[in-house]
Amino acid sequence: MKVQVRSKVWLEAQGRPVLGPGRLELLQYIDEQGSISRAARLLKMTYRKAWGQIKAMEEQMDLPLVEKQAGGPGGGGARLTPEARELLAKYFRLAQGIEEEVDRRFREIFL
Amino acid sequence: MKVQVRSKVWLEAQGRPVLGPGRLELLQYIDEQGSISRAARLLKMTYRKAWGQIKAMEEQMDLPLVEKQAGGPGGGGARLTPEARELLAKYFRLAQGIEEEVDRRFREIFL
Repeated sequence: MKVQVRSKVWLEAQGRPVLGPGRLELLQYIDEQGSISRAARLLKMTYRKAWGQIKAMEEQMDLPLVEKQAGGPGGGGARLTPEARELLAKYFRLAQGIEEEVDRRFREIFL
Repeated sequence: MKVQVRSKVWLEAQGRPVLGPGRLELLQYIDEQGSISRAARLLKMTYRKAWGQIKAMEEQMDLPLVEKQAGGPGGGGARLTPEARELLAKYFRLAQGIEEEVDRRFREIFL
């Protein structure tokens, strides 16, 4: 029997999923690209869908996460708020620690 | 910000999910009911789907998991093999330990 273990950790607010690996990636790309539309393109999702996910997160958690910046030659941009950075850091710390723990326990119990 | 944490642990074999909370529940109901069809009914799935999941697990892990028993007045039944019992016990130990660890870390980091 050759089995591997997988795990997923996500946050919920108001009884609905609010932040998991997918939305984490969206926020990370916005941070890296300084733009919602470039982040959406890289994730092969529409701008509308990306924006919908951002608004859903902001409303569910009652936190500002992404600030749009006005026009200019590049067509404006977007950046994460300090609250978003703090949230990402916490989520990452949580998820990474859990993944290591899952692997450790799996080896202990199954191998 | 009121958030809760959720997590899921599952096993994969041959690169595909093989055992997670849903299939665990199916095996537990078969054990409890002594019957695949009663287990399927309680889970609101067809017998065909339940049987497909059992065969998929057995093939992916190359382990016998459910033994069908021949007819009789009650129309036969089914029971878990010792291999299935061992697998469930291990999975349950893994998943329960992880859930506690996720909660502990979440409180430490987020609250």
